[in-house]
Amino acid sequence: MSDLSAYRVAWIGTGVMGLPMCGHLIAAGAKLTVSNRTRAKADPLVAAGAAWVDTPRAAAQAADVVFTIVGYPQDVRQVYLGPEGVIAGARPGAVLVDMTTTEPTLAVEIAERASAAGATALDAPVSGGDVGARNGTLSIMVGGDQAALERVRPLLAALGRTIVHEGGPGSGQHTKMCNQVVIAGTMIGVCESLLYGFRAGLDLETLLQSIRGGAAGCWALDNLAPRVVKKDFAPGFMVDHFIKDMGIALQEAARMRLALPGLALVHQLYVATAAQGHGRSGTHALFLGVEAVSSERGAAP
Amino acid sequence: MSDLSAYRVAWIGTGVMGLPMCGHLIAAGAKLTVSNRTRAKADPLVAAGAAWVDTPRAAAQAADVVFTIVGYPQDVRQVYLGPEGVIAGARPGAVLVDMTTTEPTLAVEIAERASAAGATALDAPVSGGDVGARNGTLSIMVGGDQAALERVRPLLAALGRTIVHEGGPGSGQHTKMCNQVVIAGTMIGVCESLLYGFRAGLDLETLLQSIRGGAAGCWALDNLAPRVVKKDFAPGFMVDHFIKDMGIALQEAARMRLALPGLALVHQLYVATAAQGHGRSGTHALFLGVEAVSSERGAAP
Repeated sequence: MSDLSAYRVAWIGTGVMGLPMCGHLIAAGAKLTVSNRTRAKADPLVAAGAAWVDTPRAAAQAADVVFTIVGYPQDVRQVYLGPEGVIAGARPGAVLVDMTTTEPTLAVEIAERASAAGATALDAPVSGGDVGARNGTLSIMVGGDQAALERVRPLLAALGRTIVHEGGPGSGQHTKMCNQVVIAGTMIGVCESLLYGFRAGLDLETLLQSIRGGAAGCWALDNLAPRVVKKDFAPGFMVDHFIKDMGIALQEAARMRLALPGLALVHQLYVATAAQGHGRSGTHALFLGVEAVSSERGAAP
Repeated sequence: MSDLSAYRVAWIGTGVMGLPMCGHLIAAGAKLTVSNRTRAKADPLVAAGAAWVDTPRAAAQAADVVFTIVGYPQDVRQVYLGPEGVIAGARPGAVLVDMTTTEPTLAVEIAERASAAGATALDAPVSGGDVGARNGTLSIMVGGDQAALERVRPLLAALGRTIVHEGGPGSGQHTKMCNQVVIAGTMIGVCESLLYGFRAGLDLETLLQSIRGGAAGCWALDNLAPRVVKKDFAPGFMVDHFIKDMGIALQEAARMRLALPGLALVHQLYVATAAQGHGRSGTHALFLGVEAVSSERGAAP
């Protein structure tokens, strides 16, 4: 791993993803300033040597490279464009890297505002989940100026295994949306398949053994279907967050005048799954949501 | 490979799947009698030493083990239960193996009729497509009497790599349905994802490089998405046949009082894709079907 001691880095957002990711940068020698809505969540990073500041603006004032990974698009908007936001504090020449999964159009807006402030913004959402964040094996999908990407690539290399420049501003977010659209399909396929097999009286372990090696093979069948069989619906990736992502994809698709009927249905079935009380379960709880549709008791307790 | 010369085998159905499969048995030394609706399609097998007969009944009369792989459920019904069908000619103690993808309830009916005639029927649909048939690498999902499966296992081992006993009569077909339900999900996910990426102006090859290694990873993304990118919609597995399979799964699910909304939508989108003239294209032509939904010209030429 490169020596990152030449970088002055700000990190905003120290949740389940941001905390271990920021930790990798500290471990590699970068000088870190951190900020987060809930200060206590950043304590382990401060203990590891990071400086704490109260606002994204103050964080940006201290850094050449600013990373953000927060929750929803409105959080990203506040963190970047609010009065105490990153843009208000950005140093000339700084590179601002948003790793939140958010709206491609918002990424474009932030890139324009950053440019007007003399900085450069990249959208760089990730896939690989909390496991990938802890292990530094994320896939990072980068939209924006390629020269800016090359400046921060040594930092990204401490966070992920696959770092791909997808195109101009927003194209990282668009790529992440494409990723989520495929996952929506694999999830409905796997969950309805298991439900059919369960109702038909098949042994589900035998079923998985028979079908996982062929044309039905997918990550969800390998990694999530065995958890469904064990009735283990802990996250992994949470239903509520996936609903957010699918909502963004549908909104962007509509803006492009593109109908995605499959994604729209899966989105609705996930909304129903969350309504039944599974919003903080893993995405494979879609099995429960679809099961309830055909249950005599519905979703009633 | 075992010496199969002790087996007197009948093979009915010598299409794109049956022809190479039957060829493997001849190559392994089994004594073959063949029959097919269109005689000319069996010519290569006759040239390789198989005996020709005109009817399934006559084929069954000559054999201890009868294999069938035909097209639609009505074909299976005719081949087994018609006046010139397999059951009418089945020898006492014979094992009858239907490898067509067909209705689980029909498989149960055939098993009952075979039993009344002193024979044993297995349902043993396959996955792996024409490539798996040619290479002898199919996955074979077997429902019915386990002892009968063990009697014919040396023959099945010449046809496939994975041979799994799924349970009683019909459970092979149910397992195949589960396989097709997963595929329906992966296909809509992959096709809508590529369509989104195309409309968003992404480089589709770069997109695939970014997402195929993670949670979106699936057989369809590895094997069919690159063909979509090249606009190569040759089959592979044909849209019309997939529509048949999904129709069976929906019908069986409804019989079990199970709603599968995802599968139902994908089925309808494939019906639309076929209506647009792509019935004999590969299943990844779903991309064209969904694309047409949002096209100004619709599906008009």
